[in-house]
Amino acid sequence: MLSALDLVRRVEAGELTPRAVVDICAEAIAACEPQIGAFATLGLDAARRAAEDPRLTATPLRGLPVGIKDIFDTADLPTQYGSRLYAGHRPRADAAAVAMVRRVGGLILGKTVTTEFAALTPAGTRNPRDPAHTPGGSSSGSAAAVAAAMLPIAFGSQTGGSVIRSAAFCGIAGFKPSYQLIPTVGMKAFSWHLDTVGLFAAGVADIAFAAAAITDRDLRVDRGAPAAPRLAFVRTHLWPQASTAMQAAVEAAARAAEKAGAAVSELTLPPILEEAYRLHRTIQDYEAFRALAYEYDHHRDALGPSLREQLDRAAAISAAEYDAARSVAKRARAALGDWMSGHDAILTPSAPGAAPHGLASTGDPAFNRLWTLMGTPCVNVPVLSESELPFGLQIVGRFGRDRTALEAALFLETAIKPK
Amino acid sequence: MLSALDLVRRVEAGELTPRAVVDICAEAIAACEPQIGAFATLGLDAARRAAEDPRLTATPLRGLPVGIKDIFDTADLPTQYGSRLYAGHRPRADAAAVAMVRRVGGLILGKTVTTEFAALTPAGTRNPRDPAHTPGGSSSGSAAAVAAAMLPIAFGSQTGGSVIRSAAFCGIAGFKPSYQLIPTVGMKAFSWHLDTVGLFAAGVADIAFAAAAITDRDLRVDRGAPAAPRLAFVRTHLWPQASTAMQAAVEAAARAAEKAGAAVSELTLPPILEEAYRLHRTIQDYEAFRALAYEYDHHRDALGPSLREQLDRAAAISAAEYDAARSVAKRARAALGDWMSGHDAILTPSAPGAAPHGLASTGDPAFNRLWTLMGTPCVNVPVLSESELPFGLQIVGRFGRDRTALEAALFLETAIKPK
Repeated sequence: MLSALDLVRRVEAGELTPRAVVDICAEAIAACEPQIGAFATLGLDAARRAAEDPRLTATPLRGLPVGIKDIFDTADLPTQYGSRLYAGHRPRADAAAVAMVRRVGGLILGKTVTTEFAALTPAGTRNPRDPAHTPGGSSSGSAAAVAAAMLPIAFGSQTGGSVIRSAAFCGIAGFKPSYQLIPTVGMKAFSWHLDTVGLFAAGVADIAFAAAAITDRDLRVDRGAPAAPRLAFVRTHLWPQASTAMQAAVEAAARAAEKAGAAVSELTLPPILEEAYRLHRTIQDYEAFRALAYEYDHHRDALGPSLREQLDRAAAISAAEYDAARSVAKRARAALGDWMSGHDAILTPSAPGAAPHGLASTGDPAFNRLWTLMGTPCVNVPVLSESELPFGLQIVGRFGRDRTALEAALFLETAIKPK
Repeated sequence: MLSALDLVRRVEAGELTPRAVVDICAEAIAACEPQIGAFATLGLDAARRAAEDPRLTATPLRGLPVGIKDIFDTADLPTQYGSRLYAGHRPRADAAAVAMVRRVGGLILGKTVTTEFAALTPAGTRNPRDPAHTPGGSSSGSAAAVAAAMLPIAFGSQTGGSVIRSAAFCGIAGFKPSYQLIPTVGMKAFSWHLDTVGLFAAGVADIAFAAAAITDRDLRVDRGAPAAPRLAFVRTHLWPQASTAMQAAVEAAARAAEKAGAAVSELTLPPILEEAYRLHRTIQDYEAFRALAYEYDHHRDALGPSLREQLDRAAAISAAEYDAARSVAKRARAALGDWMSGHDAILTPSAPGAAPHGLASTGDPAFNRLWTLMGTPCVNVPVLSESELPFGLQIVGRFGRDRTALEAALFLETAIKPK
C-alpha cells in the first residue's frame, strides 16, 4: 500500500516530486483498476498538470493524490452519487471538504465508486484482498483504491458503517472523526444527524497525518510513541453476531495491548446504549425520506429496488417516533460521555467478521451504527495476515477527543504487529 | 396581509379554490412587486396549473402559495443564491424543505430575494411599511412579500438574525424553529452550526399553522386560547443599544402580558451567555470560509466587497479559536437550558428598533445572534401602529419546545392588541 507519511517524507527529502507520486498512482490504477473497479471518474491529466505547481512542496499535503467518494460535489469532475438520475451531473461548486483538500495541497485524482446515494446496494467494486469478496460500502471505491495501492488517501462518509466497515474488509486504516469535524457541506445528504465525513489511508499514522492536514488540528501521531491507553474492551450486545475468528482477533488484540502496557478493562455499556442502537435506523430512514424527497417523489422508479423499498418503509415513520428516537440518542450520548470518563477509548469489533464472500451485499454495519449515532471518533485498525482476509479492530474515542482515539489506535496497531 | 389560516378556512368552506388564492397573490404581486422587489423569480403559471389538482383540498396546506428564499434549491425555478456567480443556475433537485412543502400541498409561487449567499449586503428589496426603509435581511424578499400581502407564507433562513429581524422590520410574524427542526439539506450553506430554516406569515397563529403542516408536529395554536405563560423579561447586555421607543415597546408588552395573566419576571442571563454571544461571529465566519471555499478560492473577485472582506478576515480565524468558541457555546446552551427550567419563554427585543432608514444596510442582527447560536426557537411578535413603523417583540423558547414558544408568542400578540 502507499503510505501517505512515507510519500510525504520522500517528497520533503527531494526523492520524489508530486508529479512522480501521481505517476505511481497512475501506474497502480492502470494495473489494478480493471479488476477492482474503484473509480467512478478519473482525473489523471488534470492531476498531473496540477502536480507541476511549485507551491505544492510548501503545502501540508505536499501534492499527495486524494480520492473523493462520488457523493461529494466537484466542479471539475462529474458527480453522480452512484445514481443514474445524476448521470453526467456536474455541480457548480466543490464540496467544502474537497475545497479544503485543495487548500492544503491535495490533488484530486478521481471520484471513487459509491453505492447509490451512499445506501446499501453494492456497486460492483471488488475487494483487492480477494476480488471474490465485497469491499464493504457505501465508500467501496475509496477503501478499495487505498487497499490496492492506487491512492494514499481517500474520502468516504459514514451514516451506518460505511467508513469503518469498508476499511475493515479491505484491511486498511479508516477514520470516522467526531461528528462534523469535517463539514458535510456539498455532500449529498442521506441523514443529516448521522452523515459523517471520514478518511481512508494505509495505516493509522497515515490517516492521522491526513486528518491533521485537512482539519488543521493537532492530530498527527507520528512524532514519538503513543502513551499506553486506558482501554475499555466492550463486546456489546452484538458480540454473538461476530464470527468466532473475529471474536478471537479482538480478544487477542486486547491481550496484546495489555502486554504492551495498556490498561484493559472488560466492561458492559449502560443499557441505554443498546436502546439507542436500535433507534439508529428510525433516525436514518426518517431523515433519508426527507433528504431524498425530490428523488423519491419525482423519480421513484429510477431508484434501485433496495433504496426504493427502504424509502417506502421510511414514509411510515412518524415525527413522534423520530423525536422519541432523537431524545434517546441525546441521553445515550450523555450517558456514554459519563461512562467513558475513566477511559481513553473502547476496543470492539469493526464488523461481524472478515469481508463476506460475493458482491451481492456490502456487509453488515451492525457494529458501526451505534457509534455513528453517538458521533464519537472511530478508527479501524486492520489485522492483516498472509493466509486470511483482514479483520478490523474498532477503536472508539470520546466525542471531540479525536487525537486520543488516534493515539490509542496507533498503540493498538503497534501492539498487534507480529514481532 | 394574507392570513394563512383565514385562507385555509375559506378553502375548506368552499368559498375559495386554491386557484383563486393564487390569483389573489398574483394580483397583489402585479400591484406591489414593481415598488417592493421581493421576488428573484416568479412561477405563477406553474402555480396556477398546479392549483387545479383536485387532491390539493385534502392536503394540510390546501394549496396555499408559498415563497421560497432563493438560497433553497428548486429544480423547476432558477436558484441564484443572490450571487452573480450563480446567474441562471438550475439545480437538479429541490431542497428538502421545498420538497416537504410540496408534499403537504404548498404551491411554490416564486423565489424571493436574498442577499448574496444570505450574508449582509442589501439586495434592493424595499420595506412595504415604508419603501424608504430596509426590510431587513438576508431573507428580505420573503419578509417583504408577506408584509405586502403578496404571499401568506414564505421561507427564510437565519444564521445571524435574518428571520426575526426581517419579520420585526416588516411587521409580520417570524419563526425560527429549534435548530434543524426543518432540514437545511439543499440550502446553500453559510455556517452549518448556525444556519436555521425559518418561516414568515401574517400572524403567530398563521405561522404556527404553517410550521405544523410542514414539520408534521403538533404546533398549531389556533384551537383555543393559549395558557398564560411564565415569561422571563430579559434585557440582556445589549439593552442600551435598543432605541428608547423599542425599550418602551418591550416594557409595555411585558406589562400587557402581566395584565393578561402571564407571570413576568425581570431577570438577568448567566454571564456565559454574553460570552457566547461574542463568539457567534467566530463560529459563523470560520465556517463560512469553508462553506464558501470554492467560491472564495476560484471566484473571489465575483463576490461583493462586503462578503469578500468578511471572508478575507475569516481566513485568519484559527481552528483553536473556533474550537474554543464552540466549547463555550455548548456550555452556554446547557446553562441556558437549566436557567430556563422555570420559564416558558424569554421576552426580549427582536431588533434595536424599527427598520432603519435607507437601503444601504439590512440592519443590526445583534439581538438575534445569541439565540441562533443557542438553537432555541424564536418568534417575532409584531407591534403595529398607524403612525409608526412596526416594532418587534422577540419570544425565545426552550430548545425543542417550539409549541410552548408559539403559544407564548400568541398570548403576547393577543395581550398587546389594542382593545
